[in-house]
Amino acid sequence: MSPELPRLSLATVCVSGTLEDKLEAIATAGFDGVEIFAPDLVADPLSPAGIGDRCRDLGLSVDLYQPLRDIDSTDPERFAANLRRADAAFEVMAGLGADTVLVCSSVSPDAVGDPDRLAGQLHTLAGRAHERGMRIAYEALAWGRHVDTWDASWRAVRDADHPALGLCLDSFHVLARGSDPAPIATEVPGEKLFFLQLADARELSMDVLSWSRHHRLFPGQGGFDLPAFLAPVLAAGYTGPLSLEVFNDVFRQADPIRTAVDARRSLLALAEEAAARGAGTDPVGTTPPAPTGTAFVELAAGPELGRVLRALGFSRTGVHRTKQVERYEQGDARVLVNAAGADGSAIAAIAVESPDPAASARRAARLCAPPLPRTTGPGEADLAEIAAPDGTSVFFCRTDGGTGTDGSGPVWSHDFVATDEPRAAGTGITGIDHLGLTQPYDAFDEAVLFHHSVLGLAPIADGEFAAPFGLVRSRAVADEARRVRIALTVSLLRRGEWSPAVADPQYVALATDDVLATAAAARDAGVPLLPVPANYHDDLAARLELPAELIATYRELGVLHERDEHGEFLQVCTELLGGRLFLSLVQRTGGHDGHGWADAPVRMAAHRRSRIGRAAVPV
Amino acid sequence: MSPELPRLSLATVCVSGTLEDKLEAIATAGFDGVEIFAPDLVADPLSPAGIGDRCRDLGLSVDLYQPLRDIDSTDPERFAANLRRADAAFEVMAGLGADTVLVCSSVSPDAVGDPDRLAGQLHTLAGRAHERGMRIAYEALAWGRHVDTWDASWRAVRDADHPALGLCLDSFHVLARGSDPAPIATEVPGEKLFFLQLADARELSMDVLSWSRHHRLFPGQGGFDLPAFLAPVLAAGYTGPLSLEVFNDVFRQADPIRTAVDARRSLLALAEEAAARGAGTDPVGTTPPAPTGTAFVELAAGPELGRVLRALGFSRTGVHRTKQVERYEQGDARVLVNAAGADGSAIAAIAVESPDPAASARRAARLCAPPLPRTTGPGEADLAEIAAPDGTSVFFCRTDGGTGTDGSGPVWSHDFVATDEPRAAGTGITGIDHLGLTQPYDAFDEAVLFHHSVLGLAPIADGEFAAPFGLVRSRAVADEARRVRIALTVSLLRRGEWSPAVADPQYVALATDDVLATAAAARDAGVPLLPVPANYHDDLAARLELPAELIATYRELGVLHERDEHGEFLQVCTELLGGRLFLSLVQRTGGHDGHGWADAPVRMAAHRRSRIGRAAVPV
Repeated sequence: MSPELPRLSLATVCVSGTLEDKLEAIATAGFDGVEIFAPDLVADPLSPAGIGDRCRDLGLSVDLYQPLRDIDSTDPERFAANLRRADAAFEVMAGLGADTVLVCSSVSPDAVGDPDRLAGQLHTLAGRAHERGMRIAYEALAWGRHVDTWDASWRAVRDADHPALGLCLDSFHVLARGSDPAPIATEVPGEKLFFLQLADARELSMDVLSWSRHHRLFPGQGGFDLPAFLAPVLAAGYTGPLSLEVFNDVFRQADPIRTAVDARRSLLALAEEAAARGAGTDPVGTTPPAPTGTAFVELAAGPELGRVLRALGFSRTGVHRTKQVERYEQGDARVLVNAAGADGSAIAAIAVESPDPAASARRAARLCAPPLPRTTGPGEADLAEIAAPDGTSVFFCRTDGGTGTDGSGPVWSHDFVATDEPRAAGTGITGIDHLGLTQPYDAFDEAVLFHHSVLGLAPIADGEFAAPFGLVRSRAVADEARRVRIALTVSLLRRGEWSPAVADPQYVALATDDVLATAAAARDAGVPLLPVPANYHDDLAARLELPAELIATYRELGVLHERDEHGEFLQVCTELLGGRLFLSLVQRTGGHDGHGWADAPVRMAAHRRSRIGRAAVPV
Repeated sequence: MSPELPRLSLATVCVSGTLEDKLEAIATAGFDGVEIFAPDLVADPLSPAGIGDRCRDLGLSVDLYQPLRDIDSTDPERFAANLRRADAAFEVMAGLGADTVLVCSSVSPDAVGDPDRLAGQLHTLAGRAHERGMRIAYEALAWGRHVDTWDASWRAVRDADHPALGLCLDSFHVLARGSDPAPIATEVPGEKLFFLQLADARELSMDVLSWSRHHRLFPGQGGFDLPAFLAPVLAAGYTGPLSLEVFNDVFRQADPIRTAVDARRSLLALAEEAAARGAGTDPVGTTPPAPTGTAFVELAAGPELGRVLRALGFSRTGVHRTKQVERYEQGDARVLVNAAGADGSAIAAIAVESPDPAASARRAARLCAPPLPRTTGPGEADLAEIAAPDGTSVFFCRTDGGTGTDGSGPVWSHDFVATDEPRAAGTGITGIDHLGLTQPYDAFDEAVLFHHSVLGLAPIADGEFAAPFGLVRSRAVADEARRVRIALTVSLLRRGEWSPAVADPQYVALATDDVLATAAAARDAGVPLLPVPANYHDDLAARLELPAELIATYRELGVLHERDEHGEFLQVCTELLGGRLFLSLVQRTGGHDGHGWADAPVRMAAHRRSRIGRAAVPV
């Protein structure tokens, strides 16, 4: 590793399992070091020296032992007992081979409020550590009794004035309180910054302790501006590891290797972004992605899907040279139908247009995106293929007709032999509006970070809605120009035994400038459109005061209609085409930037009805 | 139904599914009526009249249609549009056959702040309803823009002064804000109380909107004093239904029939408790339970468990007349080992001593506890048997030696033929301290209410701890005298694919006055005691400053030691005996009232190690 590149560490609290599981996962993900959380060590059968040896065998340094709580005390006897506790921690650290311990500001009723006395006690503690060649990294908990901001912790460290005493800065504690991190750059000397813990979080209105202990996220998954936090810390001269300390209920019970890989991707992307703002060294070293469109969507589906696409006005423009794949096109919407191994329809792949597909693939590899093995026939395009967290394949393709061997059309398209079928007139579909992908429960936050850092699709909207069979959380990601959009959803609670909902639904939303015309043409051609209950349209008419004639058309075609301050979002869905896939026709007006979440519960109930083949009126 | 008994209603928002699923579940659970939540109706294919017919076919009256939001407005045009929305709701209600609609206080920026103007607009609205023979039940949302307390909503209703306008009181909105409900009894005339919605909740420090929309509970499952809320409402003269409006993330995705039964049990128990305090009529009509001890615990397990019990100093005192069941005893600890169908050990049943078992069984039936079919051989005791939410059987037995046919010992014991084996000396076990039962994810809150209302075991402690494979929530229930204790636990998130933890662990904690002597004797007799890591005892020594000699004994025996302000809790666990069952030896001093949750993560990691047979030191 280049010496200027940051060392990356992960706290054992971030991942699930026993200490042994955690260390294996952290090493597998390629981290340089680890923070050992004391309760993980206490439950482990290995001695501290044995754990230290295990870390070194795995290529991990023990960058921090944590935490030592409630050290200072207004009661001299209690303070003496606390120092004995600290000595026991130093003994553990000697075994581990760790030289830095995290000391949190006290939350105890006997915490020292007087600044001079606190500085004195911290000086004493640092002296004990110094005798053993160790260091104290002092951190302000956001809910500390007297010390609860980074500047209060800095005043205590400065006044204590001991070479073995420095600061630990935790982005959560700083940003959750709305403190400005910028002055760190000038107020704190770099050599006094002993450790740096990074965590993101969604904005939640709950007490900060619960927020901190349950809902932290890896940088890039929440709402904090982490680059703006990291930059002043690096500017101050911090040279230690970038470490993540993320308490998260979901990560605590998820596959630890997967979580650790997600964590490392997060740190790499954060350091890259900070470097782009002039702070520190970029460890990724590639150009951030700039997707320029969707080259194609590949559906794993039987021939009946091809019939639906034709009825929707698509033309079958090509047949794959070697595989059971057909190419359908209308406007800028390109859909491949892959009949191989399709038992039930699903979105198998999305191809994102990139100005430099090879560079995009290199970037994905550096950001720990798992590459997929690919068999390419003679003369076929060698497309880089990676796996998204939900298992969907992602291809990178050239936008501008980077050409195949015969010089015409984009490379990927040259795997197809053109059909001699006449072009269909079409129904007004102009392209792909967005994809809807249900995420595996444990991978939702990972997916948001993956799409942003690897594909260049940033979060643009968050939602939560009460679906008939449980709450659903949603997050949409898109490029700046909205050329590529994906709506990610997940059940708020992992589904149990009673789950009559359509499992893991997926859809392709097709764009049209006149959804009423497109849907009418599709219906006339036999596309199975999803019936929408009359109650919905009665309610819509009452809410939006729409003309009766329009409502009548809506009823006929099953139009779902959302309005916000920008414009309108009109949508017509097909029935399920296979177990969980459907198509929808989407018209946006006035810059509406939504994804149909307000109407999703109605749509989900309707899809469930059609799936179980229940009569509209039960008898 | 007796006319004085309260009518019981359930809001469709309380249960999972489409409206059709919900109505079926609510009827199956035996409710009298239903609140129809507008979004449930909007997604349903039946017309309002069809839904009304369906309700009546199911024996349900439509007691409320809800909600109508943001009616009043400072903008006259907006107010006119809102009245048109209200007319549409009246039209729906006419179809449903509902005469009362819930109107929430407005949260909109254009909400009317001036009391006279608000009263005027509510008067106008009530007039429109009155023309159609309908009524407005006006409710203060706790986060309403101007009207956010019950007394503010009452002032508005009083000032509007229209016979078709009354109050809806929701216990959540009142109690979450800490308002005193007592003055309702004298300030509000009964005929102005149009509707009553009941909900409980845990104390959580989060914004009240999120708390209300995600974490409500059925009465008896949370921390609110619902009888103290219900009493003044009934005293005021309210005669309408008792209805539950509970937004809960878990209930939203759980089996709706099960949730509806839980809901009805909750209302019955609440009405019973209010009646005991002199308000309203008791719909249960039995004596509340007063458990006086644990008659026995029955384990489904093979003969190896009998060997462990003997090594623990138990005597085999009886063999069942007709079944493969053996009875073991030591002190007041009575354990049955049932070899029938045992593939893996588990707690099959608990027998609770009751002064009047038949009355306890009648009570359980009135509180919707599912009875279990039971085959009784000739001459065998006919014990009433019901199923707890986790599937464990519960028996009710006579305490006082209510005798069998030959006049000796309690009835249940007469199914056993006494062995002629000599009584073992014992190891100091005096009885059963408590049981540990992991609950199914969806049934945790239901279990707490079941144990309280049906068995008389009230919640005494709540906890949450970070176990190696995810967070665990815990709740202990016990009788006042602590003669029967059960520790209920559940994973905070339903476990996914990566779940190397011991699944659904269960244990029987056996009481002793000297755990060191009992554990040493057990170890010497070959009981497989669970090794506890040296790091745990090093940490314990540092934390509690215990003498080295004691720590050495702790290490040998694997003692877990917790201390609180009352006293000490010492515990020694066995290895797993089968896939998920273990025994523990527990000593309490100084009135410690805990259940070993602080040390549970260490114990769980140790059990996982022993379960997967991993060597203490990995190679």
